[in-house]
Amino acid sequence: MSIKSDQWFSEIFGGTTAFSFLFSKKLYESKSHFQNIEVYETPALGRVLILDGCFMVTEADSFIYHEMLVHPAMATVGNAKKVLVIGGGDGGAVTEVVKYPDVESCTLCEIDPMVVEVCREFFPHVSSGLNDPRVTFVNEDGARFIQQFKGEFDVVLVDSTDPVGPGEVLFQEPFYLAVKESLRRGGAAVFQTESPLFMRDVFVKAVKGLDGTFGRDHAKPFLATIPSYPGALWSFTLCSEAFDPAHQKTRTLPPHLSTNLNYYNPEIHFSAFALPQFVRKMLAG
Amino acid sequence: MSIKSDQWFSEIFGGTTAFSFLFSKKLYESKSHFQNIEVYETPALGRVLILDGCFMVTEADSFIYHEMLVHPAMATVGNAKKVLVIGGGDGGAVTEVVKYPDVESCTLCEIDPMVVEVCREFFPHVSSGLNDPRVTFVNEDGARFIQQFKGEFDVVLVDSTDPVGPGEVLFQEPFYLAVKESLRRGGAAVFQTESPLFMRDVFVKAVKGLDGTFGRDHAKPFLATIPSYPGALWSFTLCSEAFDPAHQKTRTLPPHLSTNLNYYNPEIHFSAFALPQFVRKMLAG
Repeated sequence: MSIKSDQWFSEIFGGTTAFSFLFSKKLYESKSHFQNIEVYETPALGRVLILDGCFMVTEADSFIYHEMLVHPAMATVGNAKKVLVIGGGDGGAVTEVVKYPDVESCTLCEIDPMVVEVCREFFPHVSSGLNDPRVTFVNEDGARFIQQFKGEFDVVLVDSTDPVGPGEVLFQEPFYLAVKESLRRGGAAVFQTESPLFMRDVFVKAVKGLDGTFGRDHAKPFLATIPSYPGALWSFTLCSEAFDPAHQKTRTLPPHLSTNLNYYNPEIHFSAFALPQFVRKMLAG
Repeated sequence: MSIKSDQWFSEIFGGTTAFSFLFSKKLYESKSHFQNIEVYETPALGRVLILDGCFMVTEADSFIYHEMLVHPAMATVGNAKKVLVIGGGDGGAVTEVVKYPDVESCTLCEIDPMVVEVCREFFPHVSSGLNDPRVTFVNEDGARFIQQFKGEFDVVLVDSTDPVGPGEVLFQEPFYLAVKESLRRGGAAVFQTESPLFMRDVFVKAVKGLDGTFGRDHAKPFLATIPSYPGALWSFTLCSEAFDPAHQKTRTLPPHLSTNLNYYNPEIHFSAFALPQFVRKMLAG
């Protein structure tokens, strides 16, 4: 058994570690205006979406990422009606958002329309929410698009790629401030903030930047395990100007959700905010 | 950048996924009576111990495994005096155990003395607890060794390899029963029970077997993220005949511990028992 054959794909992280899968077929490869897009069929992970050589979606574990990006914020705010997703062209976040009957509109702002097209075709289950009549797709740069909104959204979900290429501006303070200003009072935003284990500096900088923007104790990182992402221990940061998001009483989940979700539940919600000692230390430093 | 050079090591899991690292040097390789032992120096993970091709210890993330194997049980039982570690020849579990001043004796029962020797030499920090005068090393088969003890230990820690080769008997019910009988009343045991994400069947069988042995609600799985292990989302199961281990009030950690640990803290303790929906469903089925 060797992974040196051409039937293996590897994401090499930092030139020093790699996560790889055997594939039965490469279903798609194309270069969009922004990035290289690949789709593989695999025995272990189902279908896999790779952007610029990095894992974005796998049918095996992306439910963890999408559920944890969406439900902690939705459950904390409660009765969210107007939601914006920035990035997230795979549709996975939107699919979780439209599970809430109270949502009246969900805007997906994705810079690369080819990602949306590819996911509609190859990940129909992940992207199914895109067909919901409450969803509008806007093909724009999220960092520019957000600037026109003041006090508008109940929930903003920043489903960015890594802070290189098109995702870079989504890790900068002018963008954090624009997101904060786009929220109505009582609203909340979530940012994916990378792995505290493998991307320590990016994680610390992002959390401190959000803390500076939203105010001390108003930006709280939480964790989940995403095996296909480098470092596996992944972070999101829940931000709200109006309250401390880690200590907000969450609303009861709609009954159909508590049985239909695969990762999130109310105990997971609170436990995700418990930070390991090494994460506490790096944020205190 | 390619991982196809000879300077990369890969653990291939199930023939379909792999986690790999670049190494600067192979420090050691030898075949013991039980397994093939390799030690690598790596830029990303520090030194790495590989047994029969599988990750056992990395300097970068094994603190998570060792702290979570040891501290939830030690904190739950409180004032443990007599501790047995089965497997765990790397010494990492023992090193955590001897951090408690109340511990009077810690026995390490490891079937393969070569693992202990190699870890003393190449992982002096991980294995430092082996030098504590309260520690006794016994070179025996843990499944046989445990049978002579009745009502003896406050805490038994089963630090097994995967359920193949020498580790196989440590996933069988006669062994679970022997561990239960070796505990004093009020004592607790922890078993590493593999990944619920990548080793679903082994995980479910182990938890159900422990539940059957210790009694319903007396065997509680808990989770931590170990990036170098297949599936990354790793499980342990805390068992006690005397109480429900997930709802036991934990004792206060000795003050030197709460600052010196790198993963475990009291909030992590309780949050680790929160199970994702998919894990709940597989255990309910």
